[in-house]
Amino acid sequence: MRYSSLFGKSIYGDQSGNKFVSHHLLTKGGFIRESTAGRYYFLPLGWRVHEKIRRIIKQEMDATGAQEMLTPILHPIELWQETNRTDTTGFELMTVTDRRGAQFALGGTAEEMIVDVVRKFQISYRDLPFNIYQFSTKFRDELRARGGLLRVREFVMKDAYSFHRDEADFQKEYQRMAETYTRIFARMGLNTVMVEADNGYIGGEYCHEFIVESDVGESRFLMTADGSYAAHEDVARFWREPINLDDPLKDFQIIEQPAWVQTMDDNVKHYGLPKAHYLKNVVYRHIASGEIIIGTIRGDLDVNKAKLEHAIGAIGQLEEATEDDLYRLGTKPGYVHSWGHAARYIGDLSLTTVRNFIGGQKEETTDSINVNYGRDFECECLADIAMAQEGYLTEDTHIPLIEKRGIEVGNIFQLGYHYSQKMAGAVYVDSDGSEKPFYMGCYGIGLGRTMAAIVEVHHDQHGIVWPASVTPFHIYLISLRGREADAAQLHDQLEAHGYEVLWDDRDESPGAKFTNADLLGIPVRLVLSSRTGDQIEWKRRGDTEAELLSYEEVLQRLAAIYQGEL
Amino acid sequence: MRYSSLFGKSIYGDQSGNKFVSHHLLTKGGFIRESTAGRYYFLPLGWRVHEKIRRIIKQEMDATGAQEMLTPILHPIELWQETNRTDTTGFELMTVTDRRGAQFALGGTAEEMIVDVVRKFQISYRDLPFNIYQFSTKFRDELRARGGLLRVREFVMKDAYSFHRDEADFQKEYQRMAETYTRIFARMGLNTVMVEADNGYIGGEYCHEFIVESDVGESRFLMTADGSYAAHEDVARFWREPINLDDPLKDFQIIEQPAWVQTMDDNVKHYGLPKAHYLKNVVYRHIASGEIIIGTIRGDLDVNKAKLEHAIGAIGQLEEATEDDLYRLGTKPGYVHSWGHAARYIGDLSLTTVRNFIGGQKEETTDSINVNYGRDFECECLADIAMAQEGYLTEDTHIPLIEKRGIEVGNIFQLGYHYSQKMAGAVYVDSDGSEKPFYMGCYGIGLGRTMAAIVEVHHDQHGIVWPASVTPFHIYLISLRGREADAAQLHDQLEAHGYEVLWDDRDESPGAKFTNADLLGIPVRLVLSSRTGDQIEWKRRGDTEAELLSYEEVLQRLAAIYQGEL
Repeated sequence: MRYSSLFGKSIYGDQSGNKFVSHHLLTKGGFIRESTAGRYYFLPLGWRVHEKIRRIIKQEMDATGAQEMLTPILHPIELWQETNRTDTTGFELMTVTDRRGAQFALGGTAEEMIVDVVRKFQISYRDLPFNIYQFSTKFRDELRARGGLLRVREFVMKDAYSFHRDEADFQKEYQRMAETYTRIFARMGLNTVMVEADNGYIGGEYCHEFIVESDVGESRFLMTADGSYAAHEDVARFWREPINLDDPLKDFQIIEQPAWVQTMDDNVKHYGLPKAHYLKNVVYRHIASGEIIIGTIRGDLDVNKAKLEHAIGAIGQLEEATEDDLYRLGTKPGYVHSWGHAARYIGDLSLTTVRNFIGGQKEETTDSINVNYGRDFECECLADIAMAQEGYLTEDTHIPLIEKRGIEVGNIFQLGYHYSQKMAGAVYVDSDGSEKPFYMGCYGIGLGRTMAAIVEVHHDQHGIVWPASVTPFHIYLISLRGREADAAQLHDQLEAHGYEVLWDDRDESPGAKFTNADLLGIPVRLVLSSRTGDQIEWKRRGDTEAELLSYEEVLQRLAAIYQGEL
Repeated sequence: MRYSSLFGKSIYGDQSGNKFVSHHLLTKGGFIRESTAGRYYFLPLGWRVHEKIRRIIKQEMDATGAQEMLTPILHPIELWQETNRTDTTGFELMTVTDRRGAQFALGGTAEEMIVDVVRKFQISYRDLPFNIYQFSTKFRDELRARGGLLRVREFVMKDAYSFHRDEADFQKEYQRMAETYTRIFARMGLNTVMVEADNGYIGGEYCHEFIVESDVGESRFLMTADGSYAAHEDVARFWREPINLDDPLKDFQIIEQPAWVQTMDDNVKHYGLPKAHYLKNVVYRHIASGEIIIGTIRGDLDVNKAKLEHAIGAIGQLEEATEDDLYRLGTKPGYVHSWGHAARYIGDLSLTTVRNFIGGQKEETTDSINVNYGRDFECECLADIAMAQEGYLTEDTHIPLIEKRGIEVGNIFQLGYHYSQKMAGAVYVDSDGSEKPFYMGCYGIGLGRTMAAIVEVHHDQHGIVWPASVTPFHIYLISLRGREADAAQLHDQLEAHGYEVLWDDRDESPGAKFTNADLLGIPVRLVLSSRTGDQIEWKRRGDTEAELLSYEEVLQRLAAIYQGEL
């Protein structure tokens, strides 16, 4: 294809307003263009990449026996009400009403729809298992869009749903999908870490994210150097080392305390003991009910809101309390008690690792000491509500955790009976004739975010460096003045061999064309100029030196690079 | 693939509630399933057909140099306001508001979006022409969905938009697209008629529909036997033969008329002259403004509402007047005058083909005679507002028109400057440095409706008969008891040759499997049974007799059928 005919050429202006490299390069190179915040046009160049990503996903999904289909984008709201997700997904769900008054959700994920179509059939045990998937546009009413394709409000997702007779059968599929995902991303030049994650509003008991390590990623996770454990911060477990469990229990006392002792650091200074010896309370409000929840935790740890939400079954429902909330509670910042307020107290597991805590009932000039969990105060329950940090040890193996950031490009979820038990008729007929709910899993990949992740990983200071598997074209052909006819011939020959050639036939300077080749990041650059004679200048994107090759040599090298990709 | 593993098997119940053959067979065969009225799940079998249709369209579009891309589904409402289409599309446009208060249209067609992305680039004459297209889900808030995939509320459309320096350049693309569409449909086994059509709310000056002849189609059109003229009823022109223009003009008179003369037939009986000699008035109301419009026409013709709307620039805005409207106008049914009411009068061209009309001012016992247009009454304008009928003659060549019905599967539109003049900055920089609006066209194909049209054309009493190019699988392989292992081997061998094999491996009777093969309509049925020995039973869908062939013969025949389709 002639670059002159391409719609969506590179932009020669300053794009520095775009904070992330992928946003910057994809916009500047004419791959994408913003419509409104979080909604993007995929221009022809970008769409070619998107579709190669789709093709790889489809090939690998089909190879596992999964079957592609399509659900409508508008989901009858009644289905979401059946599973109560009109509440739990909160504000991210967009709805629309048609002129007959029927209400629909704009699909953000399709569990209900898929269960709905499956239950329309009389599924028997002979039909199980199966895995059905689609590529379809999804909508999320995100409050803040961010960074080009990294967090958007509308995107194409591959979402797959598997149906099983029982958990054992599901486990095999979960493992197969995990391996398939790793292979899918590897084919696109992405090394992913499979990370235990929070299942959020999807439901089910466990799930994993596939994360590409990147400093610009929104996902913070903890893993060991040997890869034996990796978990998103919202679920990462760690060993809470006993601090002083051999100390004798002392009597609870309320003592005078100088008025200047207010913060944790003041405590450390005043009492001479490290942070672990003090009680800490973090206050939240349930958005819907207004109920106050206090997370009580060892002083050296922080509360993880997501874990706390899970502990009380209020996914996405907690907000940090405001000063007003504290006043209504009869206290103020720095003076929240570990007992006694009209609130629900949830304690972290760490409360049992320390004897004779200091604090828990601070007033202006007094505080309590020798406070012991179970003897002097109790929470509604003890749970893992603490934020893991770099350097903490894994729970069982005591290996140090390393903190990482990354981009979540895919996820796999155990759903179990979460949907089949809530939705009427979501059953199969077993061999004994009885009806049983099916056991489910689901598996997602965001295509646009994957594309952004590839650019975040594969670029240099000059532009993108596409992996051969997802490059929009195989060859960027540059003809310099006088060689247009030869370039046209070479273009046609290479296309006849099945290569996709983007021929920069514009009336531009050599420098402008070379710069554009680097920006667009196509793996192979060929040049025909007055200096290349009967040969062809060959340069791989990322190499510094070009070489002169014969046409046959060019063909050989192309075959090596694009083996299996045509 | 094993049929036992397929999600979405045939339904063995009565599906006779589905009025149209395509709806019936596609549902019964497990190709599609209704979600809510007008919204369908495409099951794996149906999606395979859908995607083969997509592939054919993409191949042919790409071959013309058109470039695939993607626009967001949610269109900022401001863009539709720029072109005033929030009004003209009326109720079919669905809108949604996000939680920040931004309003969006759910894309029903994407002219504004495409112009918007194009104008974000500084297009120069060197970038023109180009044609960009997408496959994307479209929404229409239809009051009545109908007939499975024939008229739906949500569907995948291929919509293309071309940009040109001038009309001459556009004309070349329009012709190229016309030829491309004919080829696309022909490849899917559809003969289409290219029919002049109404551009509705798309705008522009002319357009054509691609119609598959079918009795269940919603499109009524008129064409000549030689194909030299074909036009949708809403735009079909015809020759209005002069009735009596050689008669001398007589003096206008109001005469007594018996009270029983009320209808057109009464007139014919009373005056002894055929219908063409009487004036007829048809009354409409403008939905938005309430204004009354009277179409005045020769008595043997009928008013075509769409033509009348075009004549006054009120697309989709007229409704037939009610009796109440007539009372408000000071008259009643059968007594509307051809002049004098507080209404806008639009006359048909036929008013000048008759001298000395009878009627136009009927009262209970009087009527006017010798009424002549221009002398005794005048309309706001004369226009073509008449409905063409079978047997009428073409306007210029006087060839008889034949009435047909069909399914509109595609359309091509001249848009001209319709959008580029309404939307600010929709310009290119010409060679002299001046900015000029670009000249546009657009081109659509509905994929689901095309699939339905294929079934309407290609079926028999036993089921679907898919054309080789769009069949969900190439081969329906049946193994009867005892031949499962051989079937597994044959299945693998044929798949290794690139054929898609659906292997009915179920524990069902031969009859059930044969019936299912006919219902699903896969072009080739192979059977391995105790009676086929070392050979393979071969039957083409639609043939009555099966034959026994060797494996090599099967391969040869398959190659002949599926040449170029793998």
